[in-house]
Amino acid sequence: MTTSVIKALTFDVFGTVVDYRGTIIREGEQLNRAKELHVDWAQFADAWRARYGPSMDRVMRGELPWTNLDSLHRLSLNELLVEFKINDHFTEDEKDHLNHVWHRLQPWPDAIPGLTHLRKRFVLATLSNGNVALLVNMAKYSALPWDCILSAELVQAYKPDPRPYQMAVNLLGLRNHEVMMVAAHQEDLRAAQAQGMQAAFVPRPLERGPHNVPDLTPDPAFEVVATDFMDLAQQLGT
Amino acid sequence: MTTSVIKALTFDVFGTVVDYRGTIIREGEQLNRAKELHVDWAQFADAWRARYGPSMDRVMRGELPWTNLDSLHRLSLNELLVEFKINDHFTEDEKDHLNHVWHRLQPWPDAIPGLTHLRKRFVLATLSNGNVALLVNMAKYSALPWDCILSAELVQAYKPDPRPYQMAVNLLGLRNHEVMMVAAHQEDLRAAQAQGMQAAFVPRPLERGPHNVPDLTPDPAFEVVATDFMDLAQQLGT
Repeated sequence: MTTSVIKALTFDVFGTVVDYRGTIIREGEQLNRAKELHVDWAQFADAWRARYGPSMDRVMRGELPWTNLDSLHRLSLNELLVEFKINDHFTEDEKDHLNHVWHRLQPWPDAIPGLTHLRKRFVLATLSNGNVALLVNMAKYSALPWDCILSAELVQAYKPDPRPYQMAVNLLGLRNHEVMMVAAHQEDLRAAQAQGMQAAFVPRPLERGPHNVPDLTPDPAFEVVATDFMDLAQQLGT
Repeated sequence: MTTSVIKALTFDVFGTVVDYRGTIIREGEQLNRAKELHVDWAQFADAWRARYGPSMDRVMRGELPWTNLDSLHRLSLNELLVEFKINDHFTEDEKDHLNHVWHRLQPWPDAIPGLTHLRKRFVLATLSNGNVALLVNMAKYSALPWDCILSAELVQAYKPDPRPYQMAVNLLGLRNHEVMMVAAHQEDLRAAQAQGMQAAFVPRPLERGPHNVPDLTPDPAFEVVATDFMDLAQQLGT
């Protein structure tokens, strides 16, 4: 499939565009200083993210009714605050604020320059399991230049379910091969390709920290493999 | 209700942000020259817009299944091309292009400066009967600085049905009085207020042309009445 037909790019966000682990560690270390805590926030971030997939699985298996990601993050946070023995150090408002660290995630250094290039030629949309409010607030906080916020929330089904990918193609008014999914996660890209979309793999080796680099050997079926968003822009001819 | 609690503004688009009549006339007059036609494009624009409400009513009464606005515009356009005796002058591709004039609508002169001010303080979202692709393409074409594209298409119900307003509040993760609807149409604002949203009336006396100025006496229930988006920004303290 030629990439010259592509009109829109849809982006996975957590890990692909923004560095959730680094952001949580930075905000957490500020909390350590402000509240005289001794939390290992790298461990905290990893534990929070580890609950991400399983919490969405519970929704998709029907064990929970539709629950958006802010609420799933909060359920996980409530458990973690107890597990890390810091629950008593936070008021309800402070817990809300900490839960909204996911609204304040900071981009990888290449993300904004790369998106800015890509946006000259393509429609850029999120296609994330994050809820709309989370993605809107993050875009505003971190100045991410999206043309459109698309979320699994709009079809109440989490990726890699086929529905979010189908929704994106449909709402953008395009044919499936005119839309390219961009992600650091191969499962996400394979699910997009299964719906006829094209796929660009942008590995983020540091997503899970320097000691936890996953196998990043790309599936040869992906149309593009790029080292970062600037490289992606170059490979797509922008 | 105080406006100091407002966190997001949702905007009607056709007529409120962009001048559909002026844009259609300008593009139409170029077509007159290119194709040696003698169409009165003001009349054409008015006739196209006159079919807008009735076509959505057919969907909402269930006479048509869900049909997005691009498709409703196209059904109306097909009739108008015959009525104005110019159908034979257009290929299918040219009809598609003409139908997509709604993706190329140009903003009122105050719209972009006003939105740019307002965006510093508020989340700015569309809340339009236009479909998502139409609104995304228009934003890109006319450089409209939205944080989020919200559309009646997402709930498959056209304003003034309550569902689009409820959806906007819900997806933005806010309480209803924290969201202000901005529109040049009082019916739209009353429907938003019925869902607990606040309302800003920005009359656009030239929307239907200089000879067709409607009664613009504002409903005293609206929280804000502004002469244009710069005035709105000033009244909201940005």
